[in-house]
Amino acid sequence: MRIIDLRSDTVTQPTDKMREAMFNAMVGDDVYDDDPTIKELEKYAAELVGMEAALFVPSGTFGNQLALLTHCHRGDEVILGDDCHIVAHEVGAASVIAGVQLRTVQSDHGTLNPVEIEKRIRKEEDIHYPKTSLICVENAHSSGRVVSLKVMEEIYQVAKKHTLQVHLDGARLFNASSYLNVDVKEVTKNVDSVMFCLSKGLCAPVGSILAGKKDFISKAKKNRKLMGGGLRQAGFLAAAGLVALKEMRENLKTDHEKAILLAKELQKIPGIKLNLEDIHLNMVFFDMTDTGLVSDHVVEKFLEKGIKINGEEDGLMRFVTHYWISEEDIHFVVDLLKSLMNK
Amino acid sequence: MRIIDLRSDTVTQPTDKMREAMFNAMVGDDVYDDDPTIKELEKYAAELVGMEAALFVPSGTFGNQLALLTHCHRGDEVILGDDCHIVAHEVGAASVIAGVQLRTVQSDHGTLNPVEIEKRIRKEEDIHYPKTSLICVENAHSSGRVVSLKVMEEIYQVAKKHTLQVHLDGARLFNASSYLNVDVKEVTKNVDSVMFCLSKGLCAPVGSILAGKKDFISKAKKNRKLMGGGLRQAGFLAAAGLVALKEMRENLKTDHEKAILLAKELQKIPGIKLNLEDIHLNMVFFDMTDTGLVSDHVVEKFLEKGIKINGEEDGLMRFVTHYWISEEDIHFVVDLLKSLMNK
Amino acid sequence: MRIIDLRSDTVTQPTDKMREAMFNAMVGDDVYDDDPTIKELEKYAAELVGMEAALFVPSGTFGNQLALLTHCHRGDEVILGDDCHIVAHEVGAASVIAGVQLRTVQSDHGTLNPVEIEKRIRKEEDIHYPKTSLICVENAHSSGRVVSLKVMEEIYQVAKKHTLQVHLDGARLFNASSYLNVDVKEVTKNVDSVMFCLSKGLCAPVGSILAGKKDFISKAKKNRKLMGGGLRQAGFLAAAGLVALKEMRENLKTDHEKAILLAKELQKIPGIKLNLEDIHLNMVFFDMTDTGLVSDHVVEKFLEKGIKINGEEDGLMRFVTHYWISEEDIHFVVDLLKSLMNK
Amino acid sequence: MRIIDLRSDTVTQPTDKMREAMFNAMVGDDVYDDDPTIKELEKYAAELVGMEAALFVPSGTFGNQLALLTHCHRGDEVILGDDCHIVAHEVGAASVIAGVQLRTVQSDHGTLNPVEIEKRIRKEEDIHYPKTSLICVENAHSSGRVVSLKVMEEIYQVAKKHTLQVHLDGARLFNASSYLNVDVKEVTKNVDSVMFCLSKGLCAPVGSILAGKKDFISKAKKNRKLMGGGLRQAGFLAAAGLVALKEMRENLKTDHEKAILLAKELQKIPGIKLNLEDIHLNMVFFDMTDTGLVSDHVVEKFLEKGIKINGEEDGLMRFVTHYWISEEDIHFVVDLLKSLMNK
Repeated sequence: MRIIDLRSDTVTQPTDKMREAMFNAMVGDDVYDDDPTIKELEKYAAELVGMEAALFVPSGTFGNQLALLTHCHRGDEVILGDDCHIVAHEVGAASVIAGVQLRTVQSDHGTLNPVEIEKRIRKEEDIHYPKTSLICVENAHSSGRVVSLKVMEEIYQVAKKHTLQVHLDGARLFNASSYLNVDVKEVTKNVDSVMFCLSKGLCAPVGSILAGKKDFISKAKKNRKLMGGGLRQAGFLAAAGLVALKEMRENLKTDHEKAILLAKELQKIPGIKLNLEDIHLNMVFFDMTDTGLVSDHVVEKFLEKGIKINGEEDGLMRFVTHYWISEEDIHFVVDLLKSLMNK
Repeated sequence: MRIIDLRSDTVTQPTDKMREAMFNAMVGDDVYDDDPTIKELEKYAAELVGMEAALFVPSGTFGNQLALLTHCHRGDEVILGDDCHIVAHEVGAASVIAGVQLRTVQSDHGTLNPVEIEKRIRKEEDIHYPKTSLICVENAHSSGRVVSLKVMEEIYQVAKKHTLQVHLDGARLFNASSYLNVDVKEVTKNVDSVMFCLSKGLCAPVGSILAGKKDFISKAKKNRKLMGGGLRQAGFLAAAGLVALKEMRENLKTDHEKAILLAKELQKIPGIKLNLEDIHLNMVFFDMTDTGLVSDHVVEKFLEKGIKINGEEDGLMRFVTHYWISEEDIHFVVDLLKSLMNK
Repeated sequence: MRIIDLRSDTVTQPTDKMREAMFNAMVGDDVYDDDPTIKELEKYAAELVGMEAALFVPSGTFGNQLALLTHCHRGDEVILGDDCHIVAHEVGAASVIAGVQLRTVQSDHGTLNPVEIEKRIRKEEDIHYPKTSLICVENAHSSGRVVSLKVMEEIYQVAKKHTLQVHLDGARLFNASSYLNVDVKEVTKNVDSVMFCLSKGLCAPVGSILAGKKDFISKAKKNRKLMGGGLRQAGFLAAAGLVALKEMRENLKTDHEKAILLAKELQKIPGIKLNLEDIHLNMVFFDMTDTGLVSDHVVEKFLEKGIKINGEEDGLMRFVTHYWISEEDIHFVVDLLKSLMNK
Repeated sequence: MRIIDLRSDTVTQPTDKMREAMFNAMVGDDVYDDDPTIKELEKYAAELVGMEAALFVPSGTFGNQLALLTHCHRGDEVILGDDCHIVAHEVGAASVIAGVQLRTVQSDHGTLNPVEIEKRIRKEEDIHYPKTSLICVENAHSSGRVVSLKVMEEIYQVAKKHTLQVHLDGARLFNASSYLNVDVKEVTKNVDSVMFCLSKGLCAPVGSILAGKKDFISKAKKNRKLMGGGLRQAGFLAAAGLVALKEMRENLKTDHEKAILLAKELQKIPGIKLNLEDIHLNMVFFDMTDTGLVSDHVVEKFLEKGIKINGEEDGLMRFVTHYWISEEDIHFVVDLLKSLMNK
């Protein structure tokens, strides 16, 4: 049975080209700085996002936490959105590894109000205050929305006014630039460091990149070792990562179009609520309460037909399109959903 | 020149009775559990707030941080108000000592919405989630307001539904019970641990109490040593603390009345904005923007006359009444403010 | 120019069989528990070392630090050798991530005296004492020596007498069992958890295994996510790891024989001091002070001929043999060293 | 019944003069920098030990841990003796609060070998190494011995050669200078920061001093707040502390003489083993194994007569003399011990 996996774009299998690149990869011991493919990837990645240097890390969470550890001293305060990945989905790591205090502002699907951010910055020296040292932005946001370039710029200006650093959790950075229809450097020019994933929509099997200033990356490299992320012949992963960065970025536009198609088809089902304008990426969130369908039941019935989906969260279903989801799959899924309603 | 200090109730000098009690205190080495006055205080304090056991700690911040360290494992999540003392005024200590992740809900002068709290509790086990282990409430809140017993109870019920602990930052606990006009146990019955200060309005020179279940206090005692709070002949401080608890609680009502008097007098000054119903305690917050008076100028002119006040914060002035502020002082202060306006 | 890399066995390139296994690997999203090759590796690895469960981790340092984080509460004390990898070469991570206090005993090339260990265990409850919770042993030790089964057993008995856990840093576990000429389970039966590397002598490109009781591994899995080690299609690395475990273990014996050969040849050089009995593994440490050769000079001259070695550390040179070093290479290296002496 | 307490000098009651000084103390809110007696004490203390600035802290452990937190970044390495108070008796706090890695050298009753220290310093930059940032010395050492000025100087020179800081745990600093018969500045001139206790032999009820450079103390002051050591009207404790520093230092010589007397008397008991030259301070360690007396029995019998002692630790009994132990008490204690032997 063919499997249609709509749970996330993290489930993407690598392409054949990636498998070949891995097979043929030239590798070395990267702890000794001897892996040519890692070096090539890091160089390429840094240039791509307009940063001085870049570092391969095993995962997005690793890259974000490494950024916190490297930007901040323990006890510093970090300002970020109350629903961002670092707050919500990184197992509280910021309090364990970097040991920083997270100070949140309300997030509108990733968009933070620069005025609210500025309010939370500890401006004067006061014996009761921790030092604010970092602002984190997530773009694209895991709610499926993209933060505008204008907001990115305003946040950066607030940061610079108070000599703070800005880190971008860009797990889906290229989805953001694709939606915004700009070169990715337009997104990253207003941050000091950025983490982005080679996996997810780009289909590489494992790995993310942390990029920033030379000094920052040099410090991060040592901290990466401390966190257990100093790998040996990591060039295999880098080989796939290079294919991801060079050849798969364009494909994200297609993923987004598929999401729009899926959304439009879902809209035709009576009772399903979603808003086409909210679909910035490859993620379709929808409310099916009024259809009478029960999440657990749908999950189970779908699985019987080879369709993997996650259950409702906060009242919303989420279907994620990616390279391995075809238009045909989309119609098959929507048809199945319809048929469940009619029973 | 007589000094009138309206900056805070933390500035309160001990009473003569306290000085005498200290002079005559029987003391011993409390690390060896040999200080009779500490023991007496801890026993008295525990009973007063209806807890099984209590522990003397050097400060309110110490007591709060000790509670976090003792209730939580590192990396756990703590839900609390976004403007509470632990978040705003404890130097980021929660990320350094207990190593917990603070997850905030919007606070209306200390009042938290139980529904919002429940939303933030990590209910199911998920590999991306830290464990929620504690809710913190602050009552009275440092904005000068008291949280209602009803809200306290609702928060406790949410906590128990999800088997969480509740800690009360009761730096001004007796101000709260005084305003609510109930026995303090009515306030503490809906929490698992409470910290309250012997200093501030109660006038003891140094020290706070952490109270809770026997097991909790026993663990906290060891953690207190770890944090450097194992003191030797601390009975001196306890002697003053006992006077504070036995004889000064009643006085808080008078402090609150003085605050009301001060507020009413201030209201008579054209342009000064304040709301009498907002004055729950010994703190009068007011907006003097429309009077044309400039904060720094007032601070300076007041100091020349022996009146110590803090400058504006977030657009508000704060005058705090306490045991050492007389009605006469209040009139003197208000008259001086009027005279500054007329220049 | 052919490169002969004697710096470490971490430099080992994967075998062709590994590249093929990677190319053909079936993979899935391991954060969703969907990667069949990771599952196969973890099952195989657990059985191999006689443990209930196992977990793939990105590196040896990652595995050791994850073990500390999972076995201990913050502030606990860990007893281990003063020259072990965790103390000497993991960037102080134990104080950052697990937050434990390292208490060292003198190590004789990895062999710890059980009496000295027992002395350091905090036996009674005392308000001044942290809790001892873990003993760590390193076998084989990075000094190139193997700890005897008898010492392993004695340490385990001390641990169990005081209800402590024992973790084995077995980065080169199979080198140890090879030297001891026993099934690896004879080495691991006296520990509660073990980390071993798939890279190094076994030639896999990236990755290590942490194995132990089911509960322990289940907790470790969540902590792995916290530390940023939750990978996606990690089955590629697992595929190579399976080849490493199934087919490369036997080869370690050959590596050791090559080390003996190298040592014997080096001994023929006047002035070179080494002790054949000290060579347990694939590492030859030797003192060349009396030859008049200067470390930096040798490193440079060797490099000109395609031989990579590290410079002297604590007065000793270290040459490491591995799969990619032939007998011919060994003679070539020794001859070159001789020729440098004659100049 | 008169109590003779030989357990420690931490049990010392304050003198009448201290009680009077406390009664009359001028105090203020020290968090507002308003406590004149604290200021006087800090100024006096700094000058006494030849440092630029000083800070009052609640305890010796607090002062040591504050020094670690202020000197080091998290993850740094601290070199110190394997039996020093920070390692052995501070509840593992260094791994919780400062988050530093303790690297120990063998201690001969507090005396550390500068060569061994230098060996452990991380000299070159290496991706596997934490940064060494601090050396800690304890003088007098809690084993009752004093470290020579020569060793202090040699350690300081090693530190400065590698641009490290040196912190002195001088809980019994004045006992050390008294034994060495030098001005205390001779002891502190070879360190960058020093903590010393006002309690213990000096008889103040509560409190210690951390002294060092201005910048260091300024940073420490903020960290003190973070650790919960920002006290309010702490001048009471400072008032007693000033008496301790001004009038009780001389008395330590007498305490030491009493220890010598006690030791000489104990030596007369057959089977008791001790070495007079080992008695540097007010502590008499002795081995009574050969007397046939059992520690627990002696503790119990002594208590019946009002004598408090601790039981054997590592095979040794410890009796501590102090201000409140008279010559008569010493004879009474020794006579009682003799009488127990004869039963």
